[in-house]
Amino acid sequence: MSHALPTVDVARREARAHAATQSIRADAFLVTGMSNIRWLTGFAGSNATVLVLDDEIVLYTDSRYADRAPVELALAGSSAEIVIARADLGARIAEQLQGSVSVALEAEYVTWAQQRTIATQWLPDHEILATTEVLDRVRSVKDEAEIARIRAAADLVDTALARVAPMLRERPTERQFASALETQIRANGAAAHALETDLGFDTIVASGPNGAIPHHAPVDRVIETGDLVIIDVGGRVDGYRSDMTRTFAVGPMTNEQVRQYETVIAAQQAGVDAMVVGAETNAVDRAARQVIANAGWADSFTHGTGHGVGLDIHELPRVAATAGPDDVYEAGTVATVEPGVYLRGVAGVRIEDTCVATPTGPQRLTSFPKDPEIPVASR
Amino acid sequence: MSHALPTVDVARREARAHAATQSIRADAFLVTGMSNIRWLTGFAGSNATVLVLDDEIVLYTDSRYADRAPVELALAGSSAEIVIARADLGARIAEQLQGSVSVALEAEYVTWAQQRTIATQWLPDHEILATTEVLDRVRSVKDEAEIARIRAAADLVDTALARVAPMLRERPTERQFASALETQIRANGAAAHALETDLGFDTIVASGPNGAIPHHAPVDRVIETGDLVIIDVGGRVDGYRSDMTRTFAVGPMTNEQVRQYETVIAAQQAGVDAMVVGAETNAVDRAARQVIANAGWADSFTHGTGHGVGLDIHELPRVAATAGPDDVYEAGTVATVEPGVYLRGVAGVRIEDTCVATPTGPQRLTSFPKDPEIPVASR
Repeated sequence: MSHALPTVDVARREARAHAATQSIRADAFLVTGMSNIRWLTGFAGSNATVLVLDDEIVLYTDSRYADRAPVELALAGSSAEIVIARADLGARIAEQLQGSVSVALEAEYVTWAQQRTIATQWLPDHEILATTEVLDRVRSVKDEAEIARIRAAADLVDTALARVAPMLRERPTERQFASALETQIRANGAAAHALETDLGFDTIVASGPNGAIPHHAPVDRVIETGDLVIIDVGGRVDGYRSDMTRTFAVGPMTNEQVRQYETVIAAQQAGVDAMVVGAETNAVDRAARQVIANAGWADSFTHGTGHGVGLDIHELPRVAATAGPDDVYEAGTVATVEPGVYLRGVAGVRIEDTCVATPTGPQRLTSFPKDPEIPVASR
Repeated sequence: MSHALPTVDVARREARAHAATQSIRADAFLVTGMSNIRWLTGFAGSNATVLVLDDEIVLYTDSRYADRAPVELALAGSSAEIVIARADLGARIAEQLQGSVSVALEAEYVTWAQQRTIATQWLPDHEILATTEVLDRVRSVKDEAEIARIRAAADLVDTALARVAPMLRERPTERQFASALETQIRANGAAAHALETDLGFDTIVASGPNGAIPHHAPVDRVIETGDLVIIDVGGRVDGYRSDMTRTFAVGPMTNEQVRQYETVIAAQQAGVDAMVVGAETNAVDRAARQVIANAGWADSFTHGTGHGVGLDIHELPRVAATAGPDDVYEAGTVATVEPGVYLRGVAGVRIEDTCVATPTGPQRLTSFPKDPEIPVASR
């Protein structure tokens, strides 16, 4: 199996970064969020700082990346100049900023210690502006190359879960099942892509009463007949992540389990249906929540309905009652829809897809079947 | 295989946190570094804030951890009070701090955005102090339970590498070898411990000329006869990490390769020998560097000699020429010694152990043999 993924091209992203810098009325924008840097330049290492000026972009990194950075930037079509710096980083940035007056920092991606160093030692004569969510907002709308990577990450998980799910009949512990699933995702990734692949995040396997704890981590509890089992799992391809939750029933379901499961399925469908271009994200939250409230479980859906997904597993937009007027679906917005009903001490059900808003309506990027019955082994 | 690890007991750590708060002359210390929080309370989730007062400790987390947090804190012997908060976190902290004047923040573990929220919205009438490296410095000295966990993490890797290394004779790619080694570490971890286990960090496999790039990530290069292969790998047990590097020769070595290898072995031994209680860490850096300089390769050892290891893969103390007067080995300091010689375009050799300083001298916690010859399969 091998996927040909469209090439990343950051040219349009660079134009948007220049426009964003002008919109925040700064002479320069110092980008320090690593996912923002990767999005803007293709740089995938662990240490870099990017300076966005009116007419140029400079990426500062250290000598460990002297060989890799030019390759990564060239592959992404980046026009950024690369400067190798370490102890002299502040001096090099000050040199580049001679003649400018104001610099914006990403306040959520610089520590207070770093901001103090920048303001007092590197750039004592500059005006230092705090910004938040500038590039994060821009990159919440994905291009074709990004959507293809998220879909490829989802495919790794779909294939692995089809292979491993039958093991749920064999009374594994939560940890054993999570480990088998993760191993299969990694093996599928290595086989399918020359690009970097991995898990999207730490897998959740929550069985029986543990399912009522939304962020339960897998433990040594044996999965038993009669359990509902929540599996929340994601893949990663070339930095881009997927996020999917399915709930399986081990053995025959009680009537109440069926009602709990079908309520969540209906809530998730209502949420996905509301994910149309131009809608505010809290419309999705309301749509899903209403179905659950109608079933009498309003207080048992204790978290937001979703979140953006991309280079980060949780990114913009917010999909919750607390979302703001900027949290709107555009064509290319990728976000999850993941309602749940958690009955304390009894069981939980959550169903989640990663979806993309398109001009012709919402599309699911995660496509494993939604059926409480454990699939049979395919070979 | 099952290891009985000594129980974590945070009582002494709590006393040290109270003392640290007094030493920075603050009425309260708001701890936000997640590794510091885990060290101080046993809390292993992803969201918490800890307030250290003169005579009490309060841990704020959100409702996802309402069940887990009390269990984790009880297991660690924590005396911290747990408060579940989310949107009202600032109000709850302000309430707790009524009557106090100054609060210290961990400037390297709060973002500038968070600091602005705290200073202007949560605590507008308090004096907000910036501190750095306060608890990080205290926890660089490990207790028995911590050292046992780091050793257990090292054991996972030692056992896995013995099992997987023979595969180097079979011309795997770097990625294939890294993947096989990581799978084996994870399998060993799941089999050996009920506690959480994982990799310590992303494995480095750097063969032939790639070995001259200190932080090379594994690629699809086939490992060939004549290569030197650097393998830099770590494990993790209950949050604590190990870090080890070995270099293997595929096939017979040239005289120059032998000289390069033996120089690094001698440099590493000189560094470990200098890791005595009371010594400044830069003495270790000097000792290792001198051996390499004597061999004529001063310019080919391009990074620091080591770093502290624990809950973070890179923590205090610094082990480099840039280390300061506080970077001193105490009984219980755990740090790596990892000199290397990197010949650009040709090959690299690096040898690294995670070691602990003790009253009777340095001890290695990583114990895989140092032999360039690839071990034979044990079964």
